[in-house]
Amino acid sequence: MTTKYKNVYINDVATVVGPYEYKGPLSKRFDKHYEDMYFGCDSLECAEVKLMSDSIDLVLKKAKQEKSDVDLFIAGDLQNQITASCYTALKLERPFLGIYSACATNTEGLLLGANFIESKMADNVLVSVSSHNMVSEKQFRNPTEYGGPKPGTATFTATGGASCLLTNKKGKVKIESSTIGIPIDMAQTDPLHMGSVMAPAAAYTINKHLSDLDRTVDDYDLILTGDLGIFGKEILRDYIKSEYSIDLKDKYNDCGVMLYDLKKQKEVQAGGSGPVCSALVVYSDIIKKLEEGQLKRVLYVATGALFNPTMVFQKENILSIAHAISLESVL
Amino acid sequence: MTTKYKNVYINDVATVVGPYEYKGPLSKRFDKHYEDMYFGCDSLECAEVKLMSDSIDLVLKKAKQEKSDVDLFIAGDLQNQITASCYTALKLERPFLGIYSACATNTEGLLLGANFIESKMADNVLVSVSSHNMVSEKQFRNPTEYGGPKPGTATFTATGGASCLLTNKKGKVKIESSTIGIPIDMAQTDPLHMGSVMAPAAAYTINKHLSDLDRTVDDYDLILTGDLGIFGKEILRDYIKSEYSIDLKDKYNDCGVMLYDLKKQKEVQAGGSGPVCSALVVYSDIIKKLEEGQLKRVLYVATGALFNPTMVFQKENILSIAHAISLESVL
Repeated sequence: MTTKYKNVYINDVATVVGPYEYKGPLSKRFDKHYEDMYFGCDSLECAEVKLMSDSIDLVLKKAKQEKSDVDLFIAGDLQNQITASCYTALKLERPFLGIYSACATNTEGLLLGANFIESKMADNVLVSVSSHNMVSEKQFRNPTEYGGPKPGTATFTATGGASCLLTNKKGKVKIESSTIGIPIDMAQTDPLHMGSVMAPAAAYTINKHLSDLDRTVDDYDLILTGDLGIFGKEILRDYIKSEYSIDLKDKYNDCGVMLYDLKKQKEVQAGGSGPVCSALVVYSDIIKKLEEGQLKRVLYVATGALFNPTMVFQKENILSIAHAISLESVL
Repeated sequence: MTTKYKNVYINDVATVVGPYEYKGPLSKRFDKHYEDMYFGCDSLECAEVKLMSDSIDLVLKKAKQEKSDVDLFIAGDLQNQITASCYTALKLERPFLGIYSACATNTEGLLLGANFIESKMADNVLVSVSSHNMVSEKQFRNPTEYGGPKPGTATFTATGGASCLLTNKKGKVKIESSTIGIPIDMAQTDPLHMGSVMAPAAAYTINKHLSDLDRTVDDYDLILTGDLGIFGKEILRDYIKSEYSIDLKDKYNDCGVMLYDLKKQKEVQAGGSGPVCSALVVYSDIIKKLEEGQLKRVLYVATGALFNPTMVFQKENILSIAHAISLESVL
């Protein structure tokens, strides 16, 4: 489903990262970073709450807004029952809707927020996501053995919190349109090769977006997938060409590849993942280039794998979904 | 946040239940029931997918609509990473947004669907929820020992799937308004007394709804909470009177109390719970009374406890939230 918006702008964005992300190429563009993985909290789960909460405090400060200016808070994360978002929402004390689309959660949040603003049901909507590498490892891969090798296709859940304040007041970057994806099943069962699981969902949504709006790849300066990683990125290039005859040319990149220095940071294997991965790249790097007019229009396609460990143990296929947001420079 | 709608109607609803719900007082009003807990599936998790899928097949049949008529599918459940909804969405093959508000998920879905229809971004939105008693026991209370006694304040997760097809075409029942709640923390840590955890969230949202719309309890024929159970129901009555000076009079009931025959079905202890609990009662009983004009206006306040087992083990407080939908007879 593709929707166009006339009146939805990004007021401001904020990013908070852990040590691995801070060592990556976008290092200096993040608003805040931590040197360890606990940030002074008693548990990893609460540390993730701190990441999201920090990003909210920062975006409100940057936008010179108070908590009470937020009409609606929309958030999601990977913790079971999205508890990082729920406990963050408690601190914010604003109306809260919890969402879940795995690593595609951020674009689900942005399009829902855009919907509330476009329809004049809200003036200011705050959209947040987070993930924490060690929380994810503990939850999805328990027991994670020390020194247990992973295949090179495995991705590395990013540690960070990211928030975006959407508004109806004209700003430098607008949300121009969105496309909601459908779940895709390619009969894949390997949770250590998420790029291959999610690439077909990205292809479906990119094709759907372009065909619904009668556009081509040339109508965008950049098409950016969420967290396919180096292998998934190449799979998408091939798959979208063979399946939908779309040539992504030199217009395509993947946030999972951009977040880390893959040559130096060997621990991240095929690249970054997690709901915050794409948000960190878009909010630190892409929004700035849109604000400055270096980029005119970007298609941000967050990609998510829909599964849980129980489904993997039961040999069910891992599903995927992708939701797209078109961001436009207002310059 | 309270929003009024002019143009959002319920096309049809459908309910599917397990054996415990079928033994309750609403027995004959459910569209379909199963005698066991597996429904021919290989796992309990897949059985829950069947419950939700069945309710979708039924609602589309009753409404004489095809899958392709559904513009958008919104769904949530209690399984980690809402996998019951994701795997159901795969079968439906329509644009899908995953949501999570624990047992308040159904009203989150209905208000989001109403938003898409009111703003003309969609014509037909399908909203589904499910829960499965044994999936929840396995996931939230593992290891569940045979014969292990629970306190009488414990509620019983309902087994069922429920779907509602929202439309912009005039029907017999409309969604008139909604109120989005905020997370509430009353420093409670007992996962076997959810009624007491959630009652304050219900009180907050009922008061917010009434004050935002400048209404009183007398503007409703019925105020219906989601799944507080017998103890939570009395706590809400007292709490909302002392905290907000609201007397619920004879206008109040709770779906967790209505779903089962609490005198005969001792195994359900304080009443039903789970995202599907309130949906089963509203879709089998309340909608019918609204269609026939026996009820003119009902405030449906689904209540959810925001937590997961990890947070309980770490001695974090259990949070709660409630979202309200006002349903009106169009007669």
